[in-house]
Amino acid sequence: MNYNEEQNLRIAYIEEIIRNYLPEEKGYQKTVLEAMNYSVLAGGKRIRPMLILETYRLFAKDNDKVLEPFIAAIEMIHTYSLVHDDLPAIDNDDYRRGRKTTHVVYGEAMAILAGDALLNYAYEVATRAFDLTEDTNRLLQVAKALKVLARKPGIYGMIGGQVVDVELTNSEIPKEKLNFIYELKTSALIEASMMIGAILAGANDKELLVVEEAARNIGLAFQIQDDILDVTSSVEVLGKPINSDEKNNKTTYVTIEGINKAQKDVEKMSKIAIDNLTSLNKENQFLFELIHKLINREK
Amino acid sequence: MNYNEEQNLRIAYIEEIIRNYLPEEKGYQKTVLEAMNYSVLAGGKRIRPMLILETYRLFAKDNDKVLEPFIAAIEMIHTYSLVHDDLPAIDNDDYRRGRKTTHVVYGEAMAILAGDALLNYAYEVATRAFDLTEDTNRLLQVAKALKVLARKPGIYGMIGGQVVDVELTNSEIPKEKLNFIYELKTSALIEASMMIGAILAGANDKELLVVEEAARNIGLAFQIQDDILDVTSSVEVLGKPINSDEKNNKTTYVTIEGINKAQKDVEKMSKIAIDNLTSLNKENQFLFELIHKLINREK
Repeated sequence: MNYNEEQNLRIAYIEEIIRNYLPEEKGYQKTVLEAMNYSVLAGGKRIRPMLILETYRLFAKDNDKVLEPFIAAIEMIHTYSLVHDDLPAIDNDDYRRGRKTTHVVYGEAMAILAGDALLNYAYEVATRAFDLTEDTNRLLQVAKALKVLARKPGIYGMIGGQVVDVELTNSEIPKEKLNFIYELKTSALIEASMMIGAILAGANDKELLVVEEAARNIGLAFQIQDDILDVTSSVEVLGKPINSDEKNNKTTYVTIEGINKAQKDVEKMSKIAIDNLTSLNKENQFLFELIHKLINREK
Repeated sequence: MNYNEEQNLRIAYIEEIIRNYLPEEKGYQKTVLEAMNYSVLAGGKRIRPMLILETYRLFAKDNDKVLEPFIAAIEMIHTYSLVHDDLPAIDNDDYRRGRKTTHVVYGEAMAILAGDALLNYAYEVATRAFDLTEDTNRLLQVAKALKVLARKPGIYGMIGGQVVDVELTNSEIPKEKLNFIYELKTSALIEASMMIGAILAGANDKELLVVEEAARNIGLAFQIQDDILDVTSSVEVLGKPINSDEKNNKTTYVTIEGINKAQKDVEKMSKIAIDNLTSLNKENQFLFELIHKLINREK
């Protein structure tokens, strides 16, 4: 089987899990449930769930039900952050992936509440993992994974990066703050995903640090590649306007470091990530290809 | 010692816990940390933390560190809901308890993010309870308390009620929907508080149901008393405009049932709550007085 077939199999599995964990659209509060499902089913690439799954498989060979609530939860957290980012008071985006954003369809109040609902439901769903095992050791792993799930999207993770990004909109961003934003806003959820997979597969603390460092570099390389594509790609390939960063006077890794250094740094970070994971002496060829494709993508 | 002295002691203890768990205002993301602390330290009555503490004490006589993260978390969740409620897109309130609301001081984008940050931080803080014990039985209690903490503020709890309330603003609300709103928007967090206290004190499932039913009635009676005071109190006592519900054409329990039935129902619900707790054959005089004062308050 080739990579794309393998990936489609995994996406189908992940989509099924996500659908199973989304709320049924019924009851007096139906509108918010519809808005939640509308946002989550907008067709993302499901990168974070895939990283949970494949990092788990780097350490363990079985399939474990206990992953499922975490797979659903990480995508709910990622989605809530997009719904709130798109709000008029923040980025004011009317479209995402060619589809109307949540506040355009459901109104601003409902989009705020749907975002809140997704964030809270992520934890409601994730805590159900405690019901899927009676083994004490496994309970401790679930507790540890839950701690990572709650820390990485927070004020010392994703939200922290988002706040600095919002505060510096329309102003020049110094290099160290840009790194801070990328690391928190993008890497934090990639770290959460890979660490949760590792924890639930029984990785030890030393291995966990190696995974976290790999994930940090994957997130950074992924984000810098985004900046590079904005300059080097074409509208046809990217499916959205190019040179938009320059037109919007946006500070990016490319505007600070130049395109050559940016490309070299992506390679460097990519190598650090792969070297880290290789040092674990575990096998999961799909994971390595996935990381390679995430970083070296053309759109 | 009289009731007020006892209450002040507890509030001082709770305030200290909350302050200990709030983030330090430093780092690039400082603004959101300031906005979080501004909202939480706006001086609420700390009813929910007190209900955690006192329901715990109904079942257990010791003081336990493991309560503390939950005490901080429930107040963060309550506060985030107020910050988002006050936003221009929802209730558009500029003042709360005589103080400017978060979006007035920090702007709308930061208020949305500070609300998100508080909700997420509640779970980050609560999951730290796992570090406070190594006893397996205790770990299971923490997991169970965490599940309640995550469920009650969610789509089948507080947010569910809030959504229906927002959707029915400026329209007449049928009785069954008003009950739904009150039960979810107000009772759900009261239920969470009392149930978490009971779970961490080792209450069994039968006792937990009794506590939940008491809490549901306390929440409803508390909310209906709010509607009654809007009609029967004076500006001097209440510290805010009276008859505001009537002026705003707002459906309340009083507009549906009339003042006499409303007062009788408060008494009835209050009695159900007290009877439920009494049936447990446990003692905590302060808790009973607290409940009595919450329901029969004059402002």
